[in-house]
Amino acid sequence: MARKSFPLSKVYGLLEPGPVVLVTTARKGRANIMTMSWHTMMEFEPPLVGCVISNRNHSFGMLKATGECVINIPTVELAAQVAACGNTSGRTLDKFRAFGLTPAAASRVKAPLIDECYAALECKVADAKLVAKYCFFILEVVKAWIDPARKNPRTLHHLGKGAFMVAGRTIKLRSRAK
Amino acid sequence: MARKSFPLSKVYGLLEPGPVVLVTTARKGRANIMTMSWHTMMEFEPPLVGCVISNRNHSFGMLKATGECVINIPTVELAAQVAACGNTSGRTLDKFRAFGLTPAAASRVKAPLIDECYAALECKVADAKLVAKYCFFILEVVKAWIDPARKNPRTLHHLGKGAFMVAGRTIKLRSRAK
Repeated sequence: MARKSFPLSKVYGLLEPGPVVLVTTARKGRANIMTMSWHTMMEFEPPLVGCVISNRNHSFGMLKATGECVINIPTVELAAQVAACGNTSGRTLDKFRAFGLTPAAASRVKAPLIDECYAALECKVADAKLVAKYCFFILEVVKAWIDPARKNPRTLHHLGKGAFMVAGRTIKLRSRAK
Repeated sequence: MARKSFPLSKVYGLLEPGPVVLVTTARKGRANIMTMSWHTMMEFEPPLVGCVISNRNHSFGMLKATGECVINIPTVELAAQVAACGNTSGRTLDKFRAFGLTPAAASRVKAPLIDECYAALECKVADAKLVAKYCFFILEVVKAWIDPARKNPRTLHHLGKGAFMVAGRTIKLRSRAK
């Protein structure tokens, strides 16, 4: 490769392109939605997901107080809503109503599913040891939902500053990986 | 959405599609390469990356002993090598030689860059508190490299069991996100 030094401040744009997700929380009769890209699997089963939710976000306090959330996975059809949820705060806005998203009851947690998303993962906080230092929550997925009718979901993958890569074609390689 | 219960054991395939990366380590004159999908950004600057490296992998001991690695980001042209690095162990194989990859000297760490990758992040372990329980390392990126000639890199995103999504088109949304 021809090599050029790359600014450390932009590194996140290289590594974060996992699927953008919409995290829902609920407390005292009010639900919120947050757009999130900083998450990773940590264990296969029970599935553990590590994620960073900034303490500047309204969802941080909701998640800390309730210990519950839903990770909803949107596709490109919801791109406008994904951006809008990221641009606004649940402190002053009912994002479900404002952006035409439909809450649906979850089975194991009080936070709602987003009906328009193709998959949803009901989660409980499993380990909060790194919350104080890194705002890093370890969540256990206790129930997972998928829309069986949706093949090849075109997930969104944030590249930084509002640019999103849309999931492309799938290839199959001989692999021993899970 | 039409809703079908989804096996908890397959949840990782929904969430892990961040870019597959090749992690290099070096110790006592020997270098190794590991294929990894379980990583997340944790801080913008200095960039912190959290990642899970199983203690069954040869790279786990190398990283723990040296505190250094390089996260190399491959594109679809390297798909065969990405799979091959994931299917084999550095305990018994020199993966650079076996798979025709070229080591190049890094600037801040002893682990090598992979010359064929379009980006490379030199990392030092910043926090090992969750290594014992989750094999979770928090890395600080101390130097980042990118190939300025490579536009729209077609990164690979593992979907489970050797299926990889190839990065598709990019869309731009009005966003306040970094």
